[in-house]
Order: sequence, then C-alpha cells, then structure tokens
Amino acid sequence: MRAVDLIQKKRDGLELSTEEIQWLIAAYAAGDIPDYQMSAFAMAVYFQNMTMREIRDLTMAMVRSGDQLDLSPIAGIKVDKHSTGGVGDKITLILAPLVTSFGVPVAKMSGRGLGHTGGTLDKLESIKGYQIELDKANFIKQVQDKGIAVIGQSEHLVKADKMLYALRDVTATVDTLPLIASSVMSKKIAAGSDAILLDVTVGDGAFMKTIEDAEKLSRIMVDLGKEVDRQTVAVITDMSQPLGQAIGNRLEVLEAVTIMQGQGRLDITQFICELAQIMLRLGGKEVDLAEIKEHLVGGKALHKFEELVAAQGGEVADIYRPVDTRYCYEIKAEQSGFINQLPALYFGHFAMEIGAGRAVKTDQLDYDAGIVFEKKVGDTISAGALVARIYSNREISQKGLTEFVKNVTINYDRVSPKEVLKVID
Amino acid sequence: MRAVDLIQKKRDGLELSTEEIQWLIAAYAAGDIPDYQMSAFAMAVYFQNMTMREIRDLTMAMVRSGDQLDLSPIAGIKVDKHSTGGVGDKITLILAPLVTSFGVPVAKMSGRGLGHTGGTLDKLESIKGYQIELDKANFIKQVQDKGIAVIGQSEHLVKADKMLYALRDVTATVDTLPLIASSVMSKKIAAGSDAILLDVTVGDGAFMKTIEDAEKLSRIMVDLGKEVDRQTVAVITDMSQPLGQAIGNRLEVLEAVTIMQGQGRLDITQFICELAQIMLRLGGKEVDLAEIKEHLVGGKALHKFEELVAAQGGEVADIYRPVDTRYCYEIKAEQSGFINQLPALYFGHFAMEIGAGRAVKTDQLDYDAGIVFEKKVGDTISAGALVARIYSNREISQKGLTEFVKNVTINYDRVSPKEVLKVID
Repeated sequence: MRAVDLIQKKRDGLELSTEEIQWLIAAYAAGDIPDYQMSAFAMAVYFQNMTMREIRDLTMAMVRSGDQLDLSPIAGIKVDKHSTGGVGDKITLILAPLVTSFGVPVAKMSGRGLGHTGGTLDKLESIKGYQIELDKANFIKQVQDKGIAVIGQSEHLVKADKMLYALRDVTATVDTLPLIASSVMSKKIAAGSDAILLDVTVGDGAFMKTIEDAEKLSRIMVDLGKEVDRQTVAVITDMSQPLGQAIGNRLEVLEAVTIMQGQGRLDITQFICELAQIMLRLGGKEVDLAEIKEHLVGGKALHKFEELVAAQGGEVADIYRPVDTRYCYEIKAEQSGFINQLPALYFGHFAMEIGAGRAVKTDQLDYDAGIVFEKKVGDTISAGALVARIYSNREISQKGLTEFVKNVTINYDRVSPKEVLKVID
Repeated sequence: MRAVDLIQKKRDGLELSTEEIQWLIAAYAAGDIPDYQMSAFAMAVYFQNMTMREIRDLTMAMVRSGDQLDLSPIAGIKVDKHSTGGVGDKITLILAPLVTSFGVPVAKMSGRGLGHTGGTLDKLESIKGYQIELDKANFIKQVQDKGIAVIGQSEHLVKADKMLYALRDVTATVDTLPLIASSVMSKKIAAGSDAILLDVTVGDGAFMKTIEDAEKLSRIMVDLGKEVDRQTVAVITDMSQPLGQAIGNRLEVLEAVTIMQGQGRLDITQFICELAQIMLRLGGKEVDLAEIKEHLVGGKALHKFEELVAAQGGEVADIYRPVDTRYCYEIKAEQSGFINQLPALYFGHFAMEIGAGRAVKTDQLDYDAGIVFEKKVGDTISAGALVARIYSNREISQKGLTEFVKNVTINYDRVSPKEVLKVID
C-alpha cells in the first residue's frame, strides 16, 4: 500500500477499506508515513468526510496505536465522562464523586487546559499535594478501594491520536467531525471504559459554535460508541456563558466544594444532578433526581471528594482554603436590568491572561487567579451592584477593566438560559 | 502571518491576498513553513481552486523564489515552448532548429523524462558529447552566435516550484489546475522568455485525460500569460497514441533527423509545421506553411540542428548512427484491417521497462532501447505485416510480446487521428 494512493482515494470521495485505514494509522504511528502526507489526508477528510464504518475503523486503529487500559479487575460498569471543553467547567470535580457515592466506580483520566478552556487536571493540581500520576496497578487498586480515581492521561495511550491532533492543530483540519469524533472516542476506549457520557458544549466558548454542529458531532460519537460496543450518551450543553460562577483553578475547586455543601447556585446544582442521572443510568443504576440531589447537597458527594483527594496525596483541608491574590477587583454594573450576555470566550481569555490558563502548553499557571461572577445571564441587577470579582496577582489596567465591564451586557431583554440543550442517545 | 490561517482561509473558499501568497511562498522556499502545512494548503487548493489573481500571484511568487534569467542581451522576441508531456514527443528537437532557421532565437531549457513520458534533455544526451550544461554567459553567447541553445534547467530557478512539485507528487495534489498552471508558467517566466507556446497534450498518454480538462488548463495558462505580459498560445494536441513513430531516446533523435531529411511521416511533418507557424508568429514573423515546410524538409532545419549539436560539444556524425541493441523483436499484425488504437500510456510504460525511460529519477537510461512503429492509428495493415520493431538490450518474455500485440487494436473501424485538436489564444 502507498499513502499517496489512499490520500487520492479519499480526495476522490471513495470509501477506504478497513485494511487501508489500519495500515495508514499503524504506519503513521510507526513514523513510516510523514506528516506531510497525513496532513493532506486530513484535509481530504475535511472535504470528503468519512462513512460511519471508516470512522469506526479509524477510531479502533488509533486505539491500537498505543496501550489500552484493562479495567476489568474493577467490578461493575465503568462509566467515563468527557467534555469537549469550556470555560469554568468544574463538572468532573463534582460529578465523579457524586456518581461514586452511589457505588458506580469512576476510573478517570483527565486532561489539561489550553487557551480559554480549562482542564480538570489543573484544577486538581491546585490542591496541595494532589498527585495526578498513578501507575496502572495503583490506579486500579484505588478505584477498587475507594470507588474513584482521577489521574492524568497516560503518555502511552493512543499514540496516533496525539500525533494527528498536533498536526491538525497547525494545518486547519481541527474542525473536521470524523477526526474530532475518532480523537475523543479513541481516548475513551483506550482508557478502558464500558460506557461513555459525552458533554458536547456549544456556543461562544465551545469548540462547536452552533447546536446543529454539536448535534452532528454528538450523533457521530453516539453511533460510533454503539459500533464498538460502548454505550454512549451525548448531552449538548450551553457554553455561551461561563459554566457556574468561577473561572480559575482554585476558584473552581472552591465553587465545587460550595456546591457539594449545598450552597451553590441552583442552576448548576440541578445541571449536575441531570448529568449524574444519565451517568448512573449508563452505570446500570436508575436513581431519581431527588435522591441524587440529596447525595450532592447533603454531603455524600463532598465526603467522596475528600476521600479522592486524600487517596491521591492531597491535603483535604486545602480544598477549603480561600484564594490569596495581590489584587481583587470588583466589577460593578453600569446600569440596571437583566444580565443578557456574558461571552464565555472573552472571559475565558481574560482569565487565561491573568494566569488562570495557558496561552501555550509550557505556560505556568497561577492557581489562585480567576474570576467569580456574582450574577449570571438571566439574573436581575441594579446599577452599581457587584457583577464579578477578579482575583489576580497581576495588576490590571483601567483599559482592561473597562473592557471587562463592556463585555457584561445588561438590558431589559430577559433570557432564560438552559444548561442541557439536548440529549442524544 | 501564520500559515495555519492561510490554509484555513483557502479551505473556507476565500481569496488570499497578494501579500499572503507572497509571504506563503517566500516562507516555504526559505524553509520556514514545513511541508505538512504546504501539503494541507495544496489539498485545500485542490478543493477550493484559486482565482486568476491568486494564480498570477502564486506564479510570480514562485518566479521570485529563485534566480531569473535575463535574456535581454539577445536581440528579438524570445519564444519558449513547453509540452505537458507525452510518449514519443521529439517535437522540440525539430521545432527549435526549424524556428531558428527563420531567424527567431531559441534559448531553451528542457527537462528529463520520468515514468512513461520522455524528456528532451535525455534525447539530446543520447548524442555523443552533447553537453546540457552551459553557464549563463555561454548560454546567451551561443544564442547570439548560432540563434539556438538547448540546455538543462538551472538548479537555481523557481526553488519553490521544485519543492512544491516534489511534495504534490506524494500527496495526491498533482492534478490541481491552478498548481499545474503556476508550475509550468513560473518555469517559463523565470527562464526569461518573452512569449510562450504551450503544447497541452491530451489523452491516454498525457497528464490531461479529457479535452475539457486540457481546455481548462490551457485557458488558465493563456490568461496567466497575459496577466504577466508574456504572450501565450496553447495548442491542445493528441496523446492517445505515441507521437510519431519512435519511442526511445536515440530512436527519437533518428526519427527527428529523418523528418528533417524530408523522409518522415507526413502527419508529424505537417504537425510540426503548424506548431512552427504559431511559434514564429509569437516571435513576430508571419510565414506561410509552404515556406515552413520547405525549411523543414529541405535541409535548413537539419543544418541548424547540426549547428546546435556541434555548438554544445556533440559529435554531429553521431546523430546519424543507428541503434545497436542485443535484441530486435518484430511485431506483426494478427489480422487485417485498420490500426484502431495504440494506447500511448501502455507503450510508454513498455519502453520505460526496457530501459528507454525511468521508473524513478535515479534510474539509468538505455539510450538505444525503444520502439519504432511502422504503422500508426488510421493506417491499413494486412495480417502478418510489420506493426513495430522493439529494440532492447533486455530479453523480452513471450508473455511480454503477446501483451504488446494485444495492445495493438486492429479492426475495420477507420479513425482519422488529428494532431492539433484546438488552439487557445
């Protein structure tokens, strides 16, 4: 087989055979196909798409390009959860212990943040002592003992995906549905889960900008899950404004704790209960929302979170420690009305620029930096009332603060944001 | 500027600015843009095409990526000629001296053959002593003195085109009209010509398989020529069967000499006169076909060819030396009728396999190897009469000979092939 022939076949809109896709990915992972051929292939896929069969073969070929985790020593149905990324997304910090509190095991690998999007791993690392690296045996043992472990993704999983993702990033082939779907799903499958809950974010701060695109991607991934015997449900969720109140690693841990103490905003509390119900269902447990909420606000989820932190070497007391930054700016409303827009992308970038995120992979994080919104879209506000607090160790110029205020749209059009826009199963 | 943004812009069907194209090509030639970005860009161009303005900018950016030859010391309008490649194409060997015999200077750089297509340079090198390398000063001096020089393409011209062409070859982006057009035209422009005759071959043995594609490419190149002030005429010519009688380097030199002695086939003799008339017109001379034919068959073209060979160190007597191969196979007709098809691609590959061509660039040529057809499409033939002779230093299996015979289609459908299918100006 020759790579150029497979590129041409895809370019001409033909379907590649299972053997051809397996060969292509294996040869690429082995370094036998150069990047310049793979990028041309990716661009051909952008224009010609892939059939469900091709996407399945691509996904499984990527799974086989690296190690695969065997979670079978852990009893029960292992449900994984993946978010396509967003601003202020602390869901995993709450959802994982909540689900575990019902006896459904969570053996999770998480990623880091980049650009305006955050990563669960960074949030956990903001807790003093928390170790994100566990070897395979200890990872499994912890889930067997405590029901939960959240670690960093192993370097040895899905080698071809890592290579291809880095390449797509610099060749304008990132937003290619078959390649996104196979990238997400190959990681989840290689990580050993039996079932998968996908949180497909949509809106300004998300990768998918329209609900139509989010639906298309969700449909592909859910169908793909079925093809490879992993029950998969996709939840399309709103990312037009930041999720919850806090953006920033330590601030999000604090918000998660607040929610698990029953003192969080009602909207995000309810949202997490809905996600938990689906995840529990995937794990074989039918639980009503009231009971889930009781676990969430009544202390059971928080207890499990403390157990997780302790098990991975973190100081439990540290999850309650407030942030301590040189500057704290209070942003006040310029007029009365309803909060109409809080563009997630802008605030995600703002948080990144004060150190809460990374512009490039090698940037150091300032764990305490970030934003806490006192008001969210749909809330009423009076002129002069507090909209948000910015915690920063870098001084923010007046121009920067003015720009921040400008991005808070207040008027008399009341919108009622929903968190879950659609469930695809 | 970032390459990824330009790739995305083209991917999304937008027009790149002059500055963007100049930057892209200059950075690529400088090694600042990696191949994997350029191949993704080429694939995006395959799908999204380019405007005439973009093609012009791309062409001129490639011209500027290397040296440019200044032919202004040579008096008169310098007309270049380019063929998009074919089987048995010895046109330049005859056309260049023929045109020169009318006082129109020919300062030509030619290329080598690859695969089933031949190259003028290889044919000239089959002449004992012929030197294809001349420095710029001697190249110009020879044209000033003798009116003609045919040398190899300088390594220093169109650097970006060389890089991009090699990349397109392995990324299924060769058959992309804007890239073909800019590749051909950038080479011609860098080589310093004032006007250009393009021989766009079409058919089985050509790069363009349909007359529609050949017309599209011709239109682009002719318009492009106008955009950059080089008067350009494209002649779409038939390459469904080999051109003339001979395939093979030395055999084609012999056929060229035979034609210039007035003993060649009438069809190719007439064809060359038609091309010469257009080329002379581009050079500012209006000459009727009868006069051109008199130069061609009456010895003036041959005399100029001898002068060319001598000027570049070749042994003039050697152009008359017959081939000397270990084997000579005679292919006879299996039935009576008309020759209906002689597929150029098949015979081009056959010739390549017995050493007349190169499968890969580093292959050594056997100058004497090749095929001479006694009959061409449209000719009558009787069962048992000679169709072709194969000259080879490698033994050809019975299977190979049987396959050869099978590719000579003889039936009672008489077709009348035309050489010039269309002129685009």
